[in-house]
Amino acid sequence: MAYKDEQLHEVKVFKDPVHRYVRVEDQVIWDLIATPEFQRLRRIKQLGTTYLTFHGAEHSRFNHSLGVYEIVRRIIKKIEHREDWNKDERLVCLCAALLHDLGHGPFSHSFEKVFSLDHEQFTQRIILEHTNVHTILRQVEDGFPEKVAKVIDKTYEDKLVVSIISSQIDADRMDYLLRDAYYTGVSYGQFDMERILRVMRPTKDEIVIKSTGMHAVEDYIMSRYQMYWQVYFHPVTRSAEVILTKIFHRAKYLYENGYKFQMEPTLLLSLFQNDVELQDYLQLDDPAVYFYFQRWKEETDPILNDLCSRFIDRKLFKYVEFNHEIERDTYDRLCELFEMVQIDPNYYLVIDSSSDLPYDVYRSGEGRIPIYLQMPSGEEKELSTHSVIVDAITGKTREDHKLYFPIEKIRSIEDHAIKEQIFKLLNFRDH
Amino acid sequence: MAYKDEQLHEVKVFKDPVHRYVRVEDQVIWDLIATPEFQRLRRIKQLGTTYLTFHGAEHSRFNHSLGVYEIVRRIIKKIEHREDWNKDERLVCLCAALLHDLGHGPFSHSFEKVFSLDHEQFTQRIILEHTNVHTILRQVEDGFPEKVAKVIDKTYEDKLVVSIISSQIDADRMDYLLRDAYYTGVSYGQFDMERILRVMRPTKDEIVIKSTGMHAVEDYIMSRYQMYWQVYFHPVTRSAEVILTKIFHRAKYLYENGYKFQMEPTLLLSLFQNDVELQDYLQLDDPAVYFYFQRWKEETDPILNDLCSRFIDRKLFKYVEFNHEIERDTYDRLCELFEMVQIDPNYYLVIDSSSDLPYDVYRSGEGRIPIYLQMPSGEEKELSTHSVIVDAITGKTREDHKLYFPIEKIRSIEDHAIKEQIFKLLNFRDH
Amino acid sequence: MAYKDEQLHEVKVFKDPVHRYVRVEDQVIWDLIATPEFQRLRRIKQLGTTYLTFHGAEHSRFNHSLGVYEIVRRIIKKIEHREDWNKDERLVCLCAALLHDLGHGPFSHSFEKVFSLDHEQFTQRIILEHTNVHTILRQVEDGFPEKVAKVIDKTYEDKLVVSIISSQIDADRMDYLLRDAYYTGVSYGQFDMERILRVMRPTKDEIVIKSTGMHAVEDYIMSRYQMYWQVYFHPVTRSAEVILTKIFHRAKYLYENGYKFQMEPTLLLSLFQNDVELQDYLQLDDPAVYFYFQRWKEETDPILNDLCSRFIDRKLFKYVEFNHEIERDTYDRLCELFEMVQIDPNYYLVIDSSSDLPYDVYRSGEGRIPIYLQMPSGEEKELSTHSVIVDAITGKTREDHKLYFPIEKIRSIEDHAIKEQIFKLLNFRDH
Amino acid sequence: MAYKDEQLHEVKVFKDPVHRYVRVEDQVIWDLIATPEFQRLRRIKQLGTTYLTFHGAEHSRFNHSLGVYEIVRRIIKKIEHREDWNKDERLVCLCAALLHDLGHGPFSHSFEKVFSLDHEQFTQRIILEHTNVHTILRQVEDGFPEKVAKVIDKTYEDKLVVSIISSQIDADRMDYLLRDAYYTGVSYGQFDMERILRVMRPTKDEIVIKSTGMHAVEDYIMSRYQMYWQVYFHPVTRSAEVILTKIFHRAKYLYENGYKFQMEPTLLLSLFQNDVELQDYLQLDDPAVYFYFQRWKEETDPILNDLCSRFIDRKLFKYVEFNHEIERDTYDRLCELFEMVQIDPNYYLVIDSSSDLPYDVYRSGEGRIPIYLQMPSGEEKELSTHSVIVDAITGKTREDHKLYFPIEKIRSIEDHAIKEQIFKLLNFRDH
Repeated sequence: MAYKDEQLHEVKVFKDPVHRYVRVEDQVIWDLIATPEFQRLRRIKQLGTTYLTFHGAEHSRFNHSLGVYEIVRRIIKKIEHREDWNKDERLVCLCAALLHDLGHGPFSHSFEKVFSLDHEQFTQRIILEHTNVHTILRQVEDGFPEKVAKVIDKTYEDKLVVSIISSQIDADRMDYLLRDAYYTGVSYGQFDMERILRVMRPTKDEIVIKSTGMHAVEDYIMSRYQMYWQVYFHPVTRSAEVILTKIFHRAKYLYENGYKFQMEPTLLLSLFQNDVELQDYLQLDDPAVYFYFQRWKEETDPILNDLCSRFIDRKLFKYVEFNHEIERDTYDRLCELFEMVQIDPNYYLVIDSSSDLPYDVYRSGEGRIPIYLQMPSGEEKELSTHSVIVDAITGKTREDHKLYFPIEKIRSIEDHAIKEQIFKLLNFRDH
Repeated sequence: MAYKDEQLHEVKVFKDPVHRYVRVEDQVIWDLIATPEFQRLRRIKQLGTTYLTFHGAEHSRFNHSLGVYEIVRRIIKKIEHREDWNKDERLVCLCAALLHDLGHGPFSHSFEKVFSLDHEQFTQRIILEHTNVHTILRQVEDGFPEKVAKVIDKTYEDKLVVSIISSQIDADRMDYLLRDAYYTGVSYGQFDMERILRVMRPTKDEIVIKSTGMHAVEDYIMSRYQMYWQVYFHPVTRSAEVILTKIFHRAKYLYENGYKFQMEPTLLLSLFQNDVELQDYLQLDDPAVYFYFQRWKEETDPILNDLCSRFIDRKLFKYVEFNHEIERDTYDRLCELFEMVQIDPNYYLVIDSSSDLPYDVYRSGEGRIPIYLQMPSGEEKELSTHSVIVDAITGKTREDHKLYFPIEKIRSIEDHAIKEQIFKLLNFRDH
Repeated sequence: MAYKDEQLHEVKVFKDPVHRYVRVEDQVIWDLIATPEFQRLRRIKQLGTTYLTFHGAEHSRFNHSLGVYEIVRRIIKKIEHREDWNKDERLVCLCAALLHDLGHGPFSHSFEKVFSLDHEQFTQRIILEHTNVHTILRQVEDGFPEKVAKVIDKTYEDKLVVSIISSQIDADRMDYLLRDAYYTGVSYGQFDMERILRVMRPTKDEIVIKSTGMHAVEDYIMSRYQMYWQVYFHPVTRSAEVILTKIFHRAKYLYENGYKFQMEPTLLLSLFQNDVELQDYLQLDDPAVYFYFQRWKEETDPILNDLCSRFIDRKLFKYVEFNHEIERDTYDRLCELFEMVQIDPNYYLVIDSSSDLPYDVYRSGEGRIPIYLQMPSGEEKELSTHSVIVDAITGKTREDHKLYFPIEKIRSIEDHAIKEQIFKLLNFRDH
Repeated sequence: MAYKDEQLHEVKVFKDPVHRYVRVEDQVIWDLIATPEFQRLRRIKQLGTTYLTFHGAEHSRFNHSLGVYEIVRRIIKKIEHREDWNKDERLVCLCAALLHDLGHGPFSHSFEKVFSLDHEQFTQRIILEHTNVHTILRQVEDGFPEKVAKVIDKTYEDKLVVSIISSQIDADRMDYLLRDAYYTGVSYGQFDMERILRVMRPTKDEIVIKSTGMHAVEDYIMSRYQMYWQVYFHPVTRSAEVILTKIFHRAKYLYENGYKFQMEPTLLLSLFQNDVELQDYLQLDDPAVYFYFQRWKEETDPILNDLCSRFIDRKLFKYVEFNHEIERDTYDRLCELFEMVQIDPNYYLVIDSSSDLPYDVYRSGEGRIPIYLQMPSGEEKELSTHSVIVDAITGKTREDHKLYFPIEKIRSIEDHAIKEQIFKLLNFRDH
């Protein structure tokens, strides 16, 4: 099928604030971007609730997906003349880059947790089932959608291709660090991507880094570390996540218990029933979630109603440091006290934990291969054996545990003794 | 009331990608930001449909409103020690800056046109009627909401305050040029705001510019000119605007003609009836519009259904240059041909015009006062009498007229002769 | 000779703050950069005395020359697959770009004026006479140095090549605007070069601009205009230029009148004698000039001594606006008064004028061809016929005249009446 | 004396590419900048020979000194309303910031090593002896020069003032990291200074950092680490340093042995004699060094002549990794071989080592106090006890040893066996 090699007459460009321009050179990429499934990503925020902490972070997954595609395009440009690169993999690699986040739903983090979904599975389903995306991919050649899906699944035969899309220094991560830094206005996410691209070298199984570029990689790993703790795990963002999660929990609970919604959540029913049709899933986007929440502010169920008001009007939970391993008794006692004053601790006393491993040599769980340096001799060395800085942080997990609660509700407890006891147990200075 | 002078114990800051930090020093500003009416601006895109052309432009009016506030805060900082500045105006000026866009609805441009609304009127209503914003403003002092509303209305007595918020070089314009440039990634909107702030001088009636800063002002005016033609009037953005406008027209028409919606647009009914309650208006946001459009993709009315699919899935109209003054006959003939093949020209053959006057000495219509330079002698001179560049463009309106149409519908006309005639009249090369 | 096509095994890169990286792909370019003649450009400031006004502007012509080379490299990359580009011209074009400023001496502006030199002639001599540069160029092929020299001379047969190096939108100008803006910290010089490179199209006789890129070109022309008036013609910079010029004048005068220098200016003698050997010229650089001036601070001639102290210690002349056409009488009267108090007006009362023509259709004098837009129809239109902004400024020369004088000397005039009269004639408010 | 509080009528500003604007608010600062001693810093490169590796790094110490002053000005602005800050220290702090590098000579690193000088001593002498700077400082108040000198000397009583100028996170380091990153174009040196300034808190003895700003400090420390290894210790820069040092050694050796210079180094004689007059020292600058080197290219001594040509024309030494602790025998053998072919190993076989300690808790030797975080409780904690990243690198010295040699000289050794043996011992692959 001629589609495979069909170059656009004139390269199309998107103006992109992060990479300056995103260049589209192939008809198939152009057509994939135009599908409703891909356009849907415009209606899903890249960083979920982060915009409630960093107001600049309102960018969509569409934005990011183009960015990942562009980085992969540039990587291929740099390595395509090299021996270990198989020219036939170009298009599968570009398509996987573009489509890798296609299955994301709105506020994925909470969503997937509550409804036991996995966006990567949906990405693969969109690629493999009856969609516009699938139709276009099939025109490239027989079996092409399956190839792309396998790259997403990390089971594709050519491991080099997989490592470009998904490794500890892949196009996905490079784009989101730079992009999220740009939109939040946080300077920590910046690193010299151009330099990294210039020192990437393909080998049989993965991309390695010319050792002269080690410092740029160190800088990238530090940027990643900073972005996780400064932005992604920001406690205010997590407060919004906690509320969002509890809204979904409550709505599901109400549905299962026969509650009659004034505004029935048609688009969510199949989720409540644990039986999601792909076409239903594709109708879910941020606006739908906001619309339901907005309307649920007027539901009679006081918990749903309150939580939705909190989310829409940004009346978030406060928090304190809380290690639930050590302080289980305190937590139990707080639950009792909450129940005594009719505040349901299942919704209003929430432990949330974040943890991150900035770099590891063995991350088999996540399937992330380590980063290798290519020495002048040709030999390959794992990064942490050569970098003092990376060695120092390798394998060191950092954790953060917080307890979230609604300060206004506690303030308005009438029983003074209980209120005081709660504040004391929380060790929270209210002013 | 002590509120008036209540400074925050510790300055609060927002990380902002454009101004680096937005600083909040007053309790009243902090409280206004926390109101549902102000938080609603997070759900309204600053640039409406522009994100369909420049994918980076997904930022909200919340974003911009904080920015305008911050610029005004900095301006006051620079001028507060000067004689002509009345220290008592500080808070009214900051509040007006923060709230000036509060009355914007979703996709205001189309919205206001179809439903004959005016966002500035809504801004004033939100400030003056029963809202959280009003309650807070009233606590500052009696008559304070009225003062703020008058600044928005440009009828406030202290003209200097009005000119900071609304003139040919006001905080509003400076923020949106810089911000829209940042988010689109277009470099043209940049100018040296810090320098402009440093050369601003208050006089009795307005802010003037120290003549040594003339070049920075020239640069600002050129940036404005470029942003209008490169971004705001981009023909692809206008294509989406055209479709959006036609959706609202169609929905209103169907409502007025008793059409039974499968998904009734509850939130829009009062608009269709030309009788908008403030509380209803405040529930309108981008997600509501998207939600209805998404659902209307399945309505039985073919025009509503088609236009909504086009908007949601970004299947926009194509366009050609078209001067309807000169080419009225062509347009009439095209309408006839469209009707012959059952394409309703009221929805599918749309003339759209943009025009801009980059700078003018007399813009009484818009109420924008000209820019004055303060010469070393103390004398004031209107900018264009001193700047060769500005003089060259003063009063020169630039216009652009386009005709929009659905290329796919035309392509699928079966009557070959009519199709050819249409293409010929459109002077459109289809490939 | 194999040199011609000798590509480097591995591309060499220079880290450049303006273009991020300068890439060298050819052995001949690498070797030219390593010559003493090219390394000498490190010791000549790009902007002469501008660093005395904008302290950041300390960059050298080496810096800029690499930048021009890099821009030309990128232009060729963009156009090399197009029909009108002759692949054989690549190397001559790159070499001319790299070497175009090779003949600059220290503080060229003053230098050339006083000693009637022309740096372009020296550039050609370095390319054509017995130098390391010449030896390398000759190894490319017979007649190659002559080709490069002709490009510099704008008499090269392939006009397209000439236009890349020297036109109203050439690589030289694009680099210096961006670079000088970067180093001074002035934001006005920025424009979207990447966009301009993308819309450049080669034709038989020159580079033209795709009409969709018109706004980027407008922006470039405005940047140029701003940089001229904000930076290049800054009155403080010109004050230093005036002093520098007068030092050279004085030294030459003293030499011609048999003055015995304590520190004889060996390297300048051939200049004083109007008979410059190339090898002598190549030893002249900024350090030599500074060294002599530093030492001349201790010469017995009071004028040389004073002027050198002024330059080295930055005790510059003050200035007033002064139109010598209109105010000839005033000037003559001031000269008389200066002479009455033994201040030599030839050195201490100096008129300096700047003028600039931001864009012109006919600039035959300078040999700069106008900018053409390539319309979608393929037709070419001169820029000002299409751009409102450019049309407005086309052919409009702007001038600035100033009178420079040593304020301290005037202040210390003992005859009060004369002093007052001078201040009055100068219309200078001394505080 | 009124000078002390004399504010400028109008704030003076310098356009600065790093901090945007440097603001001068005090007459004394303005006057200090205008002194010949301070203007001299314009003629001394901030980074010595680094410009031979990073061509952008041509900025002067004048540049940096203004930057340090500006940072200190901003720090004081942030902390001046706080209790622990003594308002009377403002001017001494600003003057020390501005003047802290006043005693630097040209290429200080090499210079100080060869001639056993210490620039901090010269800084103090310039402040305390008969100079323009001293005269101005004395006008502030009696004993004022002594105060400023003591801050430089780190023996000033108010330790808080000392810590602003000189600690592990002082204004000096913040400026040079940002500035050197800007001019080289290397992105690693960037960190969020504005954030650090906002979280600085004065205590009795030093500036501490509010714990919420920990990540910004981590980022600063990583930037510092990267700049040291990427820029300051770059092996090519060190190659030029090695040559420079050897030139000074040779010239001194020749002088001491009665060599008759064609161009006698008048300005260096007192250095050769180990008896430097302050007035002589102040005449030394980069141009003087370049001028002598340029002329010495024609001296008859072959070593001086060769080394000067190498420096001026950038024909640097090559290098290999070389640990002289382990490889002493190899080094000795190489010296023997060099002597056998009449290449003097004292000048042509040079070991150079760099080492850095990115952060330490105890750095008494250098007098750098550790960084303290101020916890919400008010308690102070040393940074590495709280930051995983900093803890990981605390106290870890990194070293780098190289052996430098003139590849061309080795290549032209006629005795093939010796040549081969040298290449083998050097383990250098020549191509």
